[in-house]
Amino acid sequence: MQNVYSFQTAGQIIAGKDSIQKLTDHLYVIGQEVKSALIISQPSISELGFVETIKNQLEQKEIHVTVNLDILPEPTVENIEEVFQKTSETQYDVLIGIGGGSVLDTTKILSVLMTNDKEVRDLLGTNMVEKAGVPTILIPTTSGTGAEVTPNAIVTIPEEELKVGIVSRYLLPAIVLLDPLLTVGLPKPITAATGMDAFTHSLESFISNKANPLSDMFALESIRLISSSIVEAYENGSSVEAREKMLIGSMYGGMALTSAGTAAVHALAYPLGGKFKIPHGVANSMLLPHVMEFNLDACTERLALVAEPMGLEVRELSDEEKAKKVIDKISEWTKTLEIPQNLEAYGVKDQDIAELAVSASQVTRLLNNNPKEVSISEMETIYRKLLS
Amino acid sequence: MQNVYSFQTAGQIIAGKDSIQKLTDHLYVIGQEVKSALIISQPSISELGFVETIKNQLEQKEIHVTVNLDILPEPTVENIEEVFQKTSETQYDVLIGIGGGSVLDTTKILSVLMTNDKEVRDLLGTNMVEKAGVPTILIPTTSGTGAEVTPNAIVTIPEEELKVGIVSRYLLPAIVLLDPLLTVGLPKPITAATGMDAFTHSLESFISNKANPLSDMFALESIRLISSSIVEAYENGSSVEAREKMLIGSMYGGMALTSAGTAAVHALAYPLGGKFKIPHGVANSMLLPHVMEFNLDACTERLALVAEPMGLEVRELSDEEKAKKVIDKISEWTKTLEIPQNLEAYGVKDQDIAELAVSASQVTRLLNNNPKEVSISEMETIYRKLLS
Repeated sequence: MQNVYSFQTAGQIIAGKDSIQKLTDHLYVIGQEVKSALIISQPSISELGFVETIKNQLEQKEIHVTVNLDILPEPTVENIEEVFQKTSETQYDVLIGIGGGSVLDTTKILSVLMTNDKEVRDLLGTNMVEKAGVPTILIPTTSGTGAEVTPNAIVTIPEEELKVGIVSRYLLPAIVLLDPLLTVGLPKPITAATGMDAFTHSLESFISNKANPLSDMFALESIRLISSSIVEAYENGSSVEAREKMLIGSMYGGMALTSAGTAAVHALAYPLGGKFKIPHGVANSMLLPHVMEFNLDACTERLALVAEPMGLEVRELSDEEKAKKVIDKISEWTKTLEIPQNLEAYGVKDQDIAELAVSASQVTRLLNNNPKEVSISEMETIYRKLLS
Repeated sequence: MQNVYSFQTAGQIIAGKDSIQKLTDHLYVIGQEVKSALIISQPSISELGFVETIKNQLEQKEIHVTVNLDILPEPTVENIEEVFQKTSETQYDVLIGIGGGSVLDTTKILSVLMTNDKEVRDLLGTNMVEKAGVPTILIPTTSGTGAEVTPNAIVTIPEEELKVGIVSRYLLPAIVLLDPLLTVGLPKPITAATGMDAFTHSLESFISNKANPLSDMFALESIRLISSSIVEAYENGSSVEAREKMLIGSMYGGMALTSAGTAAVHALAYPLGGKFKIPHGVANSMLLPHVMEFNLDACTERLALVAEPMGLEVRELSDEEKAKKVIDKISEWTKTLEIPQNLEAYGVKDQDIAELAVSASQVTRLLNNNPKEVSISEMETIYRKLLS
């Protein structure tokens, strides 16, 4: 536990079924008249009609709307700069990102590129952004990365086969809008991977060396909401109630990690994204049970505290038994939700493991939060559990 | 429960023992260079050395510091405008309020007076503030009003014997700093009244007609923290652990009410403040058990849900029994914490009751949140329970 701890979040959070219909009621939060907006999304999301819904609403208020759908999944520096070139000739009063983590992170980065006269590479690292960006509205369509409430954005640097973070409070949005109806159509594999990703954020924040009373509240409530709804959201995707719990739970996961940080699961996941293009949520979900098993003896008491919020019947058990039940439940979800457990399917071979482990060992920003030190050979052992 | 709900809070929250020593590390949140600061406080707080601590820290960073200690308890419009006249000749980059709810609310109001070219009376009501104020840092010394995280400020209008609210997102501070060491010296009666006030915020938010998943999390965690520490903080004021729980719990109470609003306890409390100068926390604490008893049948299920977070042994009980246990516990606290239960001590006589009830019935903004309608004669009955 840390002695002094802190928290920051979006300017205003609006949530609930059909909240997307009320977006323009909240534009006053921007603090200046909005005459021009840029919507950032992807074709797959636009096809579902959400971009149109927002566009029509804005145009009814006589706001000029430009739409860009060129964001690639797990975007590279080049992809982001290309979108920036295409969009930066016009001045916008607000940027609106509608999509999963890739879209939301790109929206955050574009917003500060538009005001800082820097390239993406100049912004990599912590607190490298000097000026506030164009105000943003972030609307997640997955549950999720929690990206809508974190001061972080992740970009892929292909030539270095790395995923690197930009961390700055200027990435926080003016408005977050959480409408569960936008996630109802999410395909099963994405519901599973992004849901387990959100759970990972909360669990890693809760066992983080930087855990504190603020992050603990968000983490435990997130764990409670996700545990009670992830299987239902996966099996019965049209359940608005389950989708709403997942969406709020995912946001709380983002709030928890904003304050306490993530740890070894994320450190080991980044090289899988950088080198083998495994989507962030999938990489985290694959690794989660194995890293937690490794961490068990160093955070038994904390893991035990998670059992009850997960809805497990553990009243009479010892802390060790409770913690094991938590890990068993995660493994059970891995099967129920059909989380991939085979790195070979993504082209990873045994001879790649050594290099992956060296890459992961360099993510010290996150490894420092892990309750237990992880040696390079221990990282190799963890990766090998995912080679059948 | 509301369909669409929202939440907003301070720009950055810093918490923990000795966090006051780190204030200048966080000034970057202001987003512009800070060369000049105005500290707003009261003599009783200055005597404890907290103003000096902040002043020295700022001066070491070559920031010019002005101090004003003229804020009166439960400040009137005139008091606030007097302080404004005295301080508004200089331009400040930040206003820092250190104190209880009166100081924090005044700091919030001064900040927008300095940029809006309006008088206090022009700002009364909801969304009457047009421009963002000078950025503020709010440092509570009581646990508390939650004023550090609410978009509200309350002023007294003496000639109308009323307390009226200013509600605007521009009242939210840039930074909140919660250092439990600042509350260790709080006298017992203030610990009791402000602590029960914080509990009232959370409980009223939880039973409010505007309760929602966001406000519920803050309300229940606040109830959990306050229930586990209020008696300890009262009896053993130097317990930093109890003080920290109270301070965080009080902030969560402010967050809960920001999203869900308070209800009849607050509506009935305002006339007691406006006409008889009963401090806000005392008035709320006096009324709490009686209003909850009145509300019981309209929110049995919700009150029952509060029993477990309050630490009550209720596993085998019905909802009605659980709800009654909750009210019993509040009544028990009223005795243990020596909360006044006699309005006569403040000069209220039986012939004042009718007028008090009429005044309270006009606070429709809050009465609309109450789970049960309260007639004027029912209000009179509640007030009369406090006439021995």
